[in-house]
Amino acid sequence: MSIAHPYLLFLGDAPDQLAAKVADGVARWRREWCVGQFRLPGCVADVGLPDRTLEEAAAAGAKTLIIGVANRGGRISEAWIETILAALDLGMDVASGLHGKVADIPAVRDKARALGRRISDVRHPTRSFEIGTGEKRPGKRLLAVGTDCSIGKMFTALAIEKEMRARGMKADFRATGQTGILIAGDGVAIDAVVSDFISGAVEYLCPANDPDHWDVVEGQASVLHPSYGGVTLGLVHGSQPDAMVMCHEPMRPHMRGLPNRKVPDLRTCIEAHERAARLTNPAARVIGFAFNTSALDEAGALDMMKRVSDEFSMPCVDPVRTGVGPIVDILR
Amino acid sequence: MSIAHPYLLFLGDAPDQLAAKVADGVARWRREWCVGQFRLPGCVADVGLPDRTLEEAAAAGAKTLIIGVANRGGRISEAWIETILAALDLGMDVASGLHGKVADIPAVRDKARALGRRISDVRHPTRSFEIGTGEKRPGKRLLAVGTDCSIGKMFTALAIEKEMRARGMKADFRATGQTGILIAGDGVAIDAVVSDFISGAVEYLCPANDPDHWDVVEGQASVLHPSYGGVTLGLVHGSQPDAMVMCHEPMRPHMRGLPNRKVPDLRTCIEAHERAARLTNPAARVIGFAFNTSALDEAGALDMMKRVSDEFSMPCVDPVRTGVGPIVDILR
Repeated sequence: MSIAHPYLLFLGDAPDQLAAKVADGVARWRREWCVGQFRLPGCVADVGLPDRTLEEAAAAGAKTLIIGVANRGGRISEAWIETILAALDLGMDVASGLHGKVADIPAVRDKARALGRRISDVRHPTRSFEIGTGEKRPGKRLLAVGTDCSIGKMFTALAIEKEMRARGMKADFRATGQTGILIAGDGVAIDAVVSDFISGAVEYLCPANDPDHWDVVEGQASVLHPSYGGVTLGLVHGSQPDAMVMCHEPMRPHMRGLPNRKVPDLRTCIEAHERAARLTNPAARVIGFAFNTSALDEAGALDMMKRVSDEFSMPCVDPVRTGVGPIVDILR
Repeated sequence: MSIAHPYLLFLGDAPDQLAAKVADGVARWRREWCVGQFRLPGCVADVGLPDRTLEEAAAAGAKTLIIGVANRGGRISEAWIETILAALDLGMDVASGLHGKVADIPAVRDKARALGRRISDVRHPTRSFEIGTGEKRPGKRLLAVGTDCSIGKMFTALAIEKEMRARGMKADFRATGQTGILIAGDGVAIDAVVSDFISGAVEYLCPANDPDHWDVVEGQASVLHPSYGGVTLGLVHGSQPDAMVMCHEPMRPHMRGLPNRKVPDLRTCIEAHERAARLTNPAARVIGFAFNTSALDEAGALDMMKRVSDEFSMPCVDPVRTGVGPIVDILR
């Protein structure tokens, strides 16, 4: 599922910035791949790229229109179809991370087929995978894990990849969710894989590599999440992480979508993920924390991170506020 | 995915008894649902039911032809198609647990559609599921867990259901694998569910029930299995077991299909499954063992089971050799 760049980011008629968070992520992490943004009348979002018409984007070399907007329910809006068809006519492929499939829209499917364009519905794996083996393979792997869903695992992994590359280390972000795949241009939406093949799909995603190469793998959910724990466990087993970073949002009152369930404490989460990971990599350990401290002021955030770092004797960073340098220091 | 009985068990051209193990299981556990077996020339297997022609079976009221035979690769053999078409003509539905889909054979699909017959490819879930919630629900649940795959979980669960019903207890076997589904006439092939929905599918499979009702849930693999651990964890979280029975084959030299991996010891397996289950049911515990001691002689088997029972202070049975009475004693 490899997506060709340069990208044109389609923000549609996004009613607020949050609706364009996929485009936001791509623009933040792969700005060099983006020729611009294309917005419909009424669009309120802006990801800070130059506005381009479809024709301008095509002339600038855009190879793929990225559906960077989501509406409630993850459906493709009627209002977007004209844009998608026009992009196909102008030579672009189309990629989407929505739940509804672009390839299921007859007019789009037929035009793409007639013109030989590729439609990548990245949330729907099109290839099959082998059963995981758990056999150790060369290369190093870091997995972003967390105390809950939607807690910064993708952001943390991307920040670590960027920092490692800036230091001349060999590192590749490996995407396991739809936004991550659009950012990486490749990956596997692991929560959409048939359950027998979770760990096998992850073994495929981060295969054998040079001994000094790091795959920085995007995590999903938590092994202690009652809805998605199975996804996480397969991801942990398949990635055989040498190192894990525990992502956490300290002010979250309960697990996302589960008002009756508190977020488990950090020590419990560390033990659960280390125990799980050691099945396929006995040396696996959590090496630091990545907190989202956006709900705190600077002094409060730094104080909290220092206390956690002291208590666990490992670095605690906020990728936005402090960067991930202290984590990468350990990996060298 | 509800399958109508009475059944006619189709043994095809099975070259040995093992190739007919699905039919064997159905005949053993649901003999009262079976009007007979139908065998092609050259079939070596025999599940101990009267041989019937398709016409005799139809006259005896057979509602579904069960594909009770498997060949290498799980494909539908060309040699079986004539039988399947004739059964449809005689008024029967068709159900199969093979990997290849009966409904993908054009002639079969077209005839079934024309005649209004149902084709149940039980390994391929046709319905969608909700995301699991982990919310506690009424009713009791027992889950058969194990130290590895293919170690007697289905057999143990069916034996416990039978014993509970014989004692007048309210109990229902809940099938999570293809043979179990054909035996139960219903269920969910959990390893074929999209990974996001594993625990949700299990919550659907064993829903709220009377406080004194037991769902006896077929387990799959092990949380300590590097290929399928995610499937098992979702199954454990979704079933919220009050009680678990640990299935084990004491003479197995290594995990099935993984020659480099030893079967973990019993205490490690108990702790891993109890820890996993307590996320959604803090009272979950392993209450006994179900061993497959077929590789041992009677004295050796009884001695081993007594030693294990003494060491762990809970019953150790072999469902074939001793029955599961001591397990059910605890559940009353």
